[in-house]
Amino acid sequence: MPLDYPAPIQRLIVQLKSLPGIGPRSAERMALWLLQAGRERVLPLAAALKGISEQVERCEDCGFFLELNAPCLLCTDAKRNRHIICVVEQAADVLRLERSRAFQGQYHVLGGKLSPLDNVTPEDLRIESLARRVVELPATEVILALSSDVEGEATAHYLADALRHTQTSISRLAQGMPAGGNLDHVDELTLYQALQGRRVV
Amino acid sequence: MPLDYPAPIQRLIVQLKSLPGIGPRSAERMALWLLQAGRERVLPLAAALKGISEQVERCEDCGFFLELNAPCLLCTDAKRNRHIICVVEQAADVLRLERSRAFQGQYHVLGGKLSPLDNVTPEDLRIESLARRVVELPATEVILALSSDVEGEATAHYLADALRHTQTSISRLAQGMPAGGNLDHVDELTLYQALQGRRVV
Repeated sequence: MPLDYPAPIQRLIVQLKSLPGIGPRSAERMALWLLQAGRERVLPLAAALKGISEQVERCEDCGFFLELNAPCLLCTDAKRNRHIICVVEQAADVLRLERSRAFQGQYHVLGGKLSPLDNVTPEDLRIESLARRVVELPATEVILALSSDVEGEATAHYLADALRHTQTSISRLAQGMPAGGNLDHVDELTLYQALQGRRVV
Repeated sequence: MPLDYPAPIQRLIVQLKSLPGIGPRSAERMALWLLQAGRERVLPLAAALKGISEQVERCEDCGFFLELNAPCLLCTDAKRNRHIICVVEQAADVLRLERSRAFQGQYHVLGGKLSPLDNVTPEDLRIESLARRVVELPATEVILALSSDVEGEATAHYLADALRHTQTSISRLAQGMPAGGNLDHVDELTLYQALQGRRVV
């Protein structure tokens, strides 16, 4: 058997390899870089990892991340409109929308989209708490900011059905040309939807 | 100011971003993946990081990694020839040579190569301990397995000078065509060296 790294280094390479987008070579390069960098670089990274597993929770209302024992920055922000809810799939989508500065209401993180192939059923998503919040806030409008793929469409239809009894207005994000896009770079379905949704100027 | 992730997540993103080859987007994606994966994935990675900073040392002789309080697997291997030393720049080079199974002697990790531009001087490299080992083992041959770039050349010349008094035979890796390479893909300098070093068949 050829020589290998000592066990602690091998363990680190195995762990790094399991990260998304990290292959065996990158994992080895990263481990060697960390060994070279010394404990002043390694220990803060280890501490930051422990930090997210011990100090980060999800808000029971909106589902976004919050620091342990701290209030949710979204749900407790008095400047935000409490009568409009934007439904997203993942917590990271909240930040994407926030960075666009186009929305100043409440968020609701579903935790995914319906996908029978991946065994994601309505029970796996935060749909019950959404229905409850729509009634409690109460919300006059629910915006479904979901993916524009098959699963996103199916999830939107399911949510529209599930919220019908609340009589809230339900909308979806517009589909059409991306900013800065030209007809050359847009696929046919997007072009079709951009034509369907054309607006008078 | 737009909303951002809670502080523990931001701290992790900053740490991940400092790794080689990881940009801000990959760092964010990795952090979110770890949050999703839960502590069963995060804590072993944190422990493995602590592991390398607490349980890994360098062998005082060869400079390769060893597990704390364990003997050096290279220097204590009785099957290895003790009279030939292969000098490499980095510990990772040892494994590359071991995987080729072409060498069964002692190693010596320099810790880099001479590079005035990066402020790497002879004092920064493990040259003194090399000279000591050559006398102590004693070594009848020293193979310089260094990079074939300007700094590697300079380091090889420096080492040859520094070891001259030991009267050990000093050799360098052959330069020439890479295995599987054809003339099309080889640069002019490599071709020149392959011609100079041609061998009678």
